[in-house]
Amino acid sequence: MPDVQVQRLLINYKTLEDFKSFQEYGVQELSMHEDLENNLVENDSESPFYGIYYGATLVARMSLYERSAKFDNYFDPPQDYLVLWKLEVLPEYRGKSYARLLVDYAKSYKLPIKTNPLIDSHGFWDHMDFEKASYNMERDLGENPYIWMPKGVEQVD
Amino acid sequence: MPDVQVQRLLINYKTLEDFKSFQEYGVQELSMHEDLENNLVENDSESPFYGIYYGATLVARMSLYERSAKFDNYFDPPQDYLVLWKLEVLPEYRGKSYARLLVDYAKSYKLPIKTNPLIDSHGFWDHMDFEKASYNMERDLGENPYIWMPKGVEQVD
Repeated sequence: MPDVQVQRLLINYKTLEDFKSFQEYGVQELSMHEDLENNLVENDSESPFYGIYYGATLVARMSLYERSAKFDNYFDPPQDYLVLWKLEVLPEYRGKSYARLLVDYAKSYKLPIKTNPLIDSHGFWDHMDFEKASYNMERDLGENPYIWMPKGVEQVD
Repeated sequence: MPDVQVQRLLINYKTLEDFKSFQEYGVQELSMHEDLENNLVENDSESPFYGIYYGATLVARMSLYERSAKFDNYFDPPQDYLVLWKLEVLPEYRGKSYARLLVDYAKSYKLPIKTNPLIDSHGFWDHMDFEKASYNMERDLGENPYIWMPKGVEQVD
């Protein structure tokens, strides 16, 4: 079994081609592609994506972004936190805990994490020790936010 | 054929029961249910949902919320706009333009509209004259925002 680890993905044509295998391929990826073509970002610059390769194949990925405390409406006290999205494992590589490996990587920053899971993935997030944020319509609109908090952090009332 | 029109839905146990037929049933609905049970909202108070009944059956719905200009990062000039989510027609009632009826209703406010469509529904939104917002990672994170603008409104650079 090859060595499996989480790595930060670099923006280049190879990565962007790899992304096409994932179901949640959208405007974010297209915009990265355009930025690369127009030299708005350099080849091999850092992306918000982290992934796992199995041999040469990108088999799992997620996006992570650190939001500043001043935009925090989720945690008490307000603090820097991570937003996690586009967590996905290619179908033929599921059941190997790759998703958990990615989530554990995100937790290793010791910052609270917020994600907006797909409706049918709540069981997974429960399993990852995330909890449902109390729904606040003006804040959450169409989201079903799930959050994870390191010790000493609470969700806002 | 019964008269078909868009109406604002009231929060009561009947509406909340009707919502269970929709795929995108989540924490928003559960939270409305709790608020009703705990008398935090009155029976028959207005909800952010609009829907279409076919006879006694709620067959289509959407949620609409007006965001203030001070939170507008999408339009130029910054202005009040509508966020639209949970647009859904029950499977056996599709192909009757109920979704278009709901979207036309939202447009009738003459405010710009922002939505975050499911990945496989872009064709529908194109058809409704929505356009893809230029992706901005810090603003959009995991969203693929589509917007509609009345005459005289542009999207921000």
